[in-house]
Amino acid sequence: MTEVADFVRENRERFRAELFEFLEIPSISTDSEHGADVDRCAGWLASRLEEVGLEGVEVEETDGNPVVVADHRVAAEAPTVLVYGHYDVQPPDPVDEWVSPAFEPSVRDGRVYARGATDDKGQVYMHVKALEARLREEAGLPVNVKLVLEGEEEVGSPNLEPFLRENRERLDCDAVVISDTGMFARDVPSVTVGLRGMVYQEITFRGPSSDLHSGLYGGTVVNPANALAETLAQLKDDDRRITIPGFYEDVREMTDEERETVETLPFDEEDYRQEVGVRQLGGEAGRSTLERAWFRPTLDVNGLVSGYTGEGAKTVLPSRATAKLSMRLVPDQDPARVQENFQWYVRALAPDEVDVDLQGHHGARPWAADPEGPVFRAASEALEEAFGREPVFVRNGGSIPIVPLFEELFEAPVLLLGFGLPGANLHAPNEWFDLEMYELGIETVARLYDHVAEREA
Amino acid sequence: MTEVADFVRENRERFRAELFEFLEIPSISTDSEHGADVDRCAGWLASRLEEVGLEGVEVEETDGNPVVVADHRVAAEAPTVLVYGHYDVQPPDPVDEWVSPAFEPSVRDGRVYARGATDDKGQVYMHVKALEARLREEAGLPVNVKLVLEGEEEVGSPNLEPFLRENRERLDCDAVVISDTGMFARDVPSVTVGLRGMVYQEITFRGPSSDLHSGLYGGTVVNPANALAETLAQLKDDDRRITIPGFYEDVREMTDEERETVETLPFDEEDYRQEVGVRQLGGEAGRSTLERAWFRPTLDVNGLVSGYTGEGAKTVLPSRATAKLSMRLVPDQDPARVQENFQWYVRALAPDEVDVDLQGHHGARPWAADPEGPVFRAASEALEEAFGREPVFVRNGGSIPIVPLFEELFEAPVLLLGFGLPGANLHAPNEWFDLEMYELGIETVARLYDHVAEREA
Repeated sequence: MTEVADFVRENRERFRAELFEFLEIPSISTDSEHGADVDRCAGWLASRLEEVGLEGVEVEETDGNPVVVADHRVAAEAPTVLVYGHYDVQPPDPVDEWVSPAFEPSVRDGRVYARGATDDKGQVYMHVKALEARLREEAGLPVNVKLVLEGEEEVGSPNLEPFLRENRERLDCDAVVISDTGMFARDVPSVTVGLRGMVYQEITFRGPSSDLHSGLYGGTVVNPANALAETLAQLKDDDRRITIPGFYEDVREMTDEERETVETLPFDEEDYRQEVGVRQLGGEAGRSTLERAWFRPTLDVNGLVSGYTGEGAKTVLPSRATAKLSMRLVPDQDPARVQENFQWYVRALAPDEVDVDLQGHHGARPWAADPEGPVFRAASEALEEAFGREPVFVRNGGSIPIVPLFEELFEAPVLLLGFGLPGANLHAPNEWFDLEMYELGIETVARLYDHVAEREA
Repeated sequence: MTEVADFVRENRERFRAELFEFLEIPSISTDSEHGADVDRCAGWLASRLEEVGLEGVEVEETDGNPVVVADHRVAAEAPTVLVYGHYDVQPPDPVDEWVSPAFEPSVRDGRVYARGATDDKGQVYMHVKALEARLREEAGLPVNVKLVLEGEEEVGSPNLEPFLRENRERLDCDAVVISDTGMFARDVPSVTVGLRGMVYQEITFRGPSSDLHSGLYGGTVVNPANALAETLAQLKDDDRRITIPGFYEDVREMTDEERETVETLPFDEEDYRQEVGVRQLGGEAGRSTLERAWFRPTLDVNGLVSGYTGEGAKTVLPSRATAKLSMRLVPDQDPARVQENFQWYVRALAPDEVDVDLQGHHGARPWAADPEGPVFRAASEALEEAFGREPVFVRNGGSIPIVPLFEELFEAPVLLLGFGLPGANLHAPNEWFDLEMYELGIETVARLYDHVAEREA
């Protein structure tokens, strides 16, 4: 199998050039103006899958963005691996903070900078090139491979579940592999065994029917921006614990074993502080940083807007104020229950003088794997061969809404095998993917097929 | 003097057309992109002053926008009236809430809708046309008239004070007349005898060096948007009193006489509620609506912005959050002292984990007149003749930063003689000026000269 590494090295320039082409397509799913780009991206990806020799490649329409599917069978008795990924990306805002444009991939210090570099185009394309590496061999693939690459992950995958249900038989599998996570550190190959869930809400407080002069009217009407700040402030207490009634009832505390694993990880608080660029880390009282990131729920404002936000001063009493806000959840919190309690609580906190509009965006269930199964051992072996080092089992504070869905629907374990590095600026300006990880990722995935074939046989 | 009214009626169409031309110039002083429009507006206004026969018309350069001056002397022994106004306007934001474009004057229901219609172009032009009405008479003007029309009122008149000090002798006067206020109601001619002051601040809380993924990092760093909301919330207590230490120390309580005057005004709380379009009025506990608007200080958020504010959901932990915020002050609060205490207090409230940037925009001293002087009597007489009704003495919750300055610098009373009507949407979308008030205003000003001449003689 060293020949896979050789093949990747020999084709390095082409593999990069193809990835950059993928990254140039602004397939932003949250912005309806980019609908045509999303469609173009799906078509481009399908063409690449056909080029590497996969069978059953289709661009399947949904009520939203298309799903790119492949269904490549080598033998009825071989195990089947289903690869999931997404070709859509987050918006590039704030655009002016990018050093090079978000959709013009730029290589600096061995990294490619572009929106979607790590999340998730770079990691999707790793799988495409791993398949190329195996399909050009005479021995070929030792497993059946199916791919489901969607275009709505960044908006909560509203059409994926119906699609998977409708195609339940066609996509039947023994294991699901998803590369949409990261490594604990550059030299620490990692398998992710836990994810947080999410509830995303938009709150608008409405006061006067239009913006008012803050001098003429100030003092006589409740200012919706002040009122929104007051309500948001009440959602946490002085220990930075969330005050929504019942919020912590279903939160599973870290086990002693989990605490031990976390404590042995090569984590440097000062490096982390510098990476995020804050003067001081901070969060829920009495918890360590990794516990806060992996095992504790959050409540973060994601956006705020009200009144005059331009240059200089405008003495306006705004007619409305809006906050976007999300809560990350941990096992066994239920997004539907959290949303219900949140909405009830915000209405209870809001002053009588304002009208309250609440809108729920996408949600996700939290998830934790049982890391004892054969697929996790196969992944450990493949990672150790490619990286020359035993991997660690970590958690991830983010959400991949469909992970628990895949697990349930296909009654198969989900393997989160990710190659993003810390500080890769996911969802932020200057997102990047390390090109060495791109190549080691291709090698790992190409090796994984053999180990899955052995262990699942 | 009924001939003034006749003259106004006969020239109605032309007077309107000229005002509309004035309103078409987007002389937005807070936005540096409109610098050329501001200059063009000053030149246009100077030409109109020359056309009506005024002498000593000049467009005087300053370090900022130009000041348009006229110095028209009729007799050394006649009293001198100095008219102040401003030709700059507020920005039109939010632009999409205007029924007709902000800089395309549109007449509906006897009102002209345009940015600056009431504040202050309509009222400045009233004076220009009143002078035309008197200068075309053989008897002419019974007083010397000087005009100072500036282009930076909406950004706090940073260059007016040096200009007035340099031109102290040239602009010497016995009374200052300013039409930049409103009437208590349509049939209630009014003289304004008190204004609130202002302190305007911009607060930025900075956390991470760039926006972070709210899943990967959420919980481990203090979110500057949450922190800003918490700090803003602490600026008022449950009675909606401002909590800045010492804030109320210099606040003059309403006198019994003032309370009596306020109670006799034709004020309907339900009409007011409907005018501003709130479900319920609200403010500092234990105070009436007019007391809140005229005699009590405020603290209002004027703008908020942080993180993602576009369509849909973006799971970002913002790197910074900004609030624009203003406090309206009443006699005898001192803006410098309020700003100092505010800044100290915000820094004390902010959590250690964020960096705090504070920027002061313009300020204004609060003001209250002594309404017993001859100019106030002259104004009462002119208003009663034009409107057929005795005027009332009211206050205004807004700020005209230079009113106390004029009073002090010229050792002369300042008369605030305004013709705006309630609900005219100053600083808001769909600003309007009632065209009947425009004409009655011209008549009142033309009559005022005689009464000033009689009383000051």
